[in-house]
Amino acid sequence: MAEPLRIGIAGLGTVGASVVRMLGQKGTELTRQCGREIVPVAVCARDRNRDRGIDLGNAHWFDDPVELARSPGIDVFVELMGGEGDPALSSVRAALESGRHVVTANKALLSRHGVELAAIAEKKGVLLNYEAAVAGGIPVIKTLREALVGNTVSRVFGIMNGTANYILTRMEAEGLSFEECLKEAQRLGYAEADPTFDIEGHDTAHKLSILTSLAFGCRISADDIYMEGISNITQADIRAAAELGYRIKLLGVAQKTESGIEQRVHPTMVPTSSVIAQVHGVTNAVAIETDMLGELLLSGPGAGGNATASAVIGDIADIAKSRPGFQHGPVFGRPAKELQPYRRARMRAHAGGYFIRFTVHDRIGVFAAIAKRMADNDISLESIVQHGEATDDAQKTVILVTHETTEAAVHKAVEGVTRDGHLTSRPQVIRIERAA
Amino acid sequence: MAEPLRIGIAGLGTVGASVVRMLGQKGTELTRQCGREIVPVAVCARDRNRDRGIDLGNAHWFDDPVELARSPGIDVFVELMGGEGDPALSSVRAALESGRHVVTANKALLSRHGVELAAIAEKKGVLLNYEAAVAGGIPVIKTLREALVGNTVSRVFGIMNGTANYILTRMEAEGLSFEECLKEAQRLGYAEADPTFDIEGHDTAHKLSILTSLAFGCRISADDIYMEGISNITQADIRAAAELGYRIKLLGVAQKTESGIEQRVHPTMVPTSSVIAQVHGVTNAVAIETDMLGELLLSGPGAGGNATASAVIGDIADIAKSRPGFQHGPVFGRPAKELQPYRRARMRAHAGGYFIRFTVHDRIGVFAAIAKRMADNDISLESIVQHGEATDDAQKTVILVTHETTEAAVHKAVEGVTRDGHLTSRPQVIRIERAA
Repeated sequence: MAEPLRIGIAGLGTVGASVVRMLGQKGTELTRQCGREIVPVAVCARDRNRDRGIDLGNAHWFDDPVELARSPGIDVFVELMGGEGDPALSSVRAALESGRHVVTANKALLSRHGVELAAIAEKKGVLLNYEAAVAGGIPVIKTLREALVGNTVSRVFGIMNGTANYILTRMEAEGLSFEECLKEAQRLGYAEADPTFDIEGHDTAHKLSILTSLAFGCRISADDIYMEGISNITQADIRAAAELGYRIKLLGVAQKTESGIEQRVHPTMVPTSSVIAQVHGVTNAVAIETDMLGELLLSGPGAGGNATASAVIGDIADIAKSRPGFQHGPVFGRPAKELQPYRRARMRAHAGGYFIRFTVHDRIGVFAAIAKRMADNDISLESIVQHGEATDDAQKTVILVTHETTEAAVHKAVEGVTRDGHLTSRPQVIRIERAA
Repeated sequence: MAEPLRIGIAGLGTVGASVVRMLGQKGTELTRQCGREIVPVAVCARDRNRDRGIDLGNAHWFDDPVELARSPGIDVFVELMGGEGDPALSSVRAALESGRHVVTANKALLSRHGVELAAIAEKKGVLLNYEAAVAGGIPVIKTLREALVGNTVSRVFGIMNGTANYILTRMEAEGLSFEECLKEAQRLGYAEADPTFDIEGHDTAHKLSILTSLAFGCRISADDIYMEGISNITQADIRAAAELGYRIKLLGVAQKTESGIEQRVHPTMVPTSSVIAQVHGVTNAVAIETDMLGELLLSGPGAGGNATASAVIGDIADIAKSRPGFQHGPVFGRPAKELQPYRRARMRAHAGGYFIRFTVHDRIGVFAAIAKRMADNDISLESIVQHGEATDDAQKTVILVTHETTEAAVHKAVEGVTRDGHLTSRPQVIRIERAA
C-alpha cells in the first residue's frame, strides 16, 4: 500500500470539525477506497483551547496557517477558514507555491482570486479542488469539470442559497411575510444576524461566478453580476405566481447570449411543474443545459457541516487516489492562462418572459393605458389577470405575464405606466426563467 | 503537450456514431481540457459499408472486435456493441488483459461480469470506466465512486428506464391506457417492438445492480432483484394515486436493511410534492441517501445517442487527463477482491407503506371484512377512500393506504380479503416509497 496522505487543516469551525470527525469514523473505509490512509497530521485554528468535541490525535498544532501551508510535513493543505483575503489567500498561495495540493471550501476566495491561484497550481503541477465551495455537498464542480467535458454549455442556473430558499418556501407554505420568515430563519440558525449576504444575493453571486468560469471557459468575474435580492417579495407576488402556474425562487443564472455572458441573481418565476420548483427549504439545486446532454439537474443539501465535509473529503480522496507524477485536468476546466476574458452581456438586452404586478387606482381607462404602454414597446402578453376583489375600495391589482421580450422594453413600458399616474404603489417586476 | 490518446471504438450504432461525431466537432476544446488530443485511430462494426453519416478519417477498420481490443495501436478500447456475452465480453477481457483502458456503456455486460472484469483491470493497473451504462448522461457513477467517498449509503433509488417513465407520464397526463401509451412510445421510437425488457423492469434491474455494488461495496448480483413491471398499472391506479397525493413511477430501489440488501424494481407511489415525482417523460433520475450528505438527486436524459456519448466522452477524458504510472480508484469503489458477498434481504420482510386497491361487490359488510383483515395483520391505515360512484351498478372501489407495515403482512391480509369472496377482480398492490 502507498504512503499515507498527510493533510493539514486550517480552520476548525463546523466544517473543519466535521472533516476531522469523518476522517476518524470512516478511516478504514476511506483507506479501502483510496488505497492509502488519509491522516490529519496538522491543524490550525484561532483558539487552541476551545472544545470542539473532536479527537485531534497527534496532529501538530500551528498558530499560523501560512506556516502550516508551507510545512514540508503535509501533502495537502485543507483551507476551511473562509474569507476572500488573508489569512486564507496568503496560506493557499503559500501551499501551492510550496508544491502542496489544496482543498478549499472558500467561494469568496475563489470568486476573487481563483484564476490567479489556478495558474499557480497548474504551474506547480498540484491540484486545487473546491467542490465544497459551490452548493455544499452537491457534486456540481466535478460534474462541470469532469463529467461534461466536451459538452458546450448554454446555461447554468440554480438555487444556491439555502437561507433565501428557506424563506421563500415558508412564505409560500404558510402565507407569512418576508420579515416573519426571516425572523424564523434567524431563530433556527438558517440566517445570520445580518442576513444581507444571503438574502440580497451576494452568496449566490460568489458561487455563480465560479460556475460561470467552469461552464464557459472564461475568467471569473464576480463584479459583473446583476443582483437583486428577495426582500421585496410579498405575499401578493407569491399568490399571483401560484395562480399563474409559477413559483418564486432566488436563482443564480449564467447564460451565453449573442452579446456576451449574462450573470444574474434575482427572484425568478419558475414553472410549478418544473423539477427545480420542487426544491424546498434549505436544499440547493443546480441545472446545467448543454448541447449534447440537454438539461441535467443536481439537487441536495447545499450547506451544513456534514454535507460540506462530504465534498471536502471527496476532494481529498481524489488526491489520495492519484499518485506522484500524475496530472489531472486544469482547475477551471481549461488551463488558467487560456481562460477567455469575461465579456459581459448588457442586462438591458436580456431576453425572457416577465411577470409584472401593478397596483392601480380603480378607475376607467387604467387598463387600456397599461395595455397601450405594453403594445407601444412591442410587448406581447401571455396572460392578464385583473383581480375582481379590490385590495381596498379605491385600488385594484393588474398582473401581466409577457411572452419573450427584453429587459429594456419592460423598463420602458413600466416607466411609461408609472408616468401615466395610475399606480398607487411601486410596480413589481419579476423575471421568468424556462426550466424543465 | 503529451502524446495523443489513441482510442479504438467497437460498435458504431447511435452511440458510437455520436462519439465519433463529438470527437470531431469538439476536438479543439477537448484537447484544451485534457491537455492532449483524443484520436479515434481504429473502429470496428458489423457492416463496413453502411453510411453512418460520420467521418471516420484514417481510422483503421477491424472486422474482429477482439483483434481491435488487443491491438497495440490503441490506448483505450471503447466498447459500444452491447450484450452481456461475446463479442463484448471477450473483447473487453482481451483489452484489459493486454493492458488497455476500457470505456463501456454496456450495463448487461457489467451486471453479469463486472466484478471479474474489475479484478482484471485492477490487476493490470488500467481503468474500466462505465458512466454511460447507468442513466445515460447523468454522472451517477462518478458521483457514487468519487464524490461520495466516505459517505455511508443507506438507499439508492431512481427512474432508470425512459420508456417506462414515458408511458406512465402519458398515462397520467392524457388519461390513456397502458396499451395505448405503449403503442405511442413504439411509434415514436421510445420503445422496442418487443418492449418486455423495458416495461417489465429488466433494464432497470441491470442498472440497479451496478449502483448497488457501488453504493454498498458488495458484489454485483443482478439475479437477486425482485422485479415487477408496469403493464398492469391502470387508469384507476393513476387516478387514485393523484387523489391521495402520489404519482406512480417505475423505480429501482436498493436499500440496506437489517437482514441484508433489498434490490427491487416495481411500480412505486412517490409523493407528488417530491422532486422525483416531477421527473417526466424519457428523463431519468437517481436519488442517493447517505449519512453525511442526506439526499442527493441527479436528473437528466437517461438515453439517446448524444447524452450517452457525453458520458462516454467524459470517461475517455478522465483517462486522457491521467498519465502513465498513475492509478485511480477501484472500478466499483472498493477493490474487486474486497467486495463483500451479496446478502439478499427477504422481500417478505420489506417494510414500507402500501397502496391497495380492491374492487368489491357492493354489499353490506364488505368494508368491515376488509378492515378486519387489515387489523388482524397489524396493518394500520393512513387513509381509506371508498368511491361513491360505483364503477358499475354492482361493484365499488375501496382504496387503502397503509402506514409502514411489511410485505408479508400485506400479502396475508390481501389473501384473506380475496378468500372472503368479496372481490370482483384481482386486487392491486403498489408499494409506496419515501422521497424528498
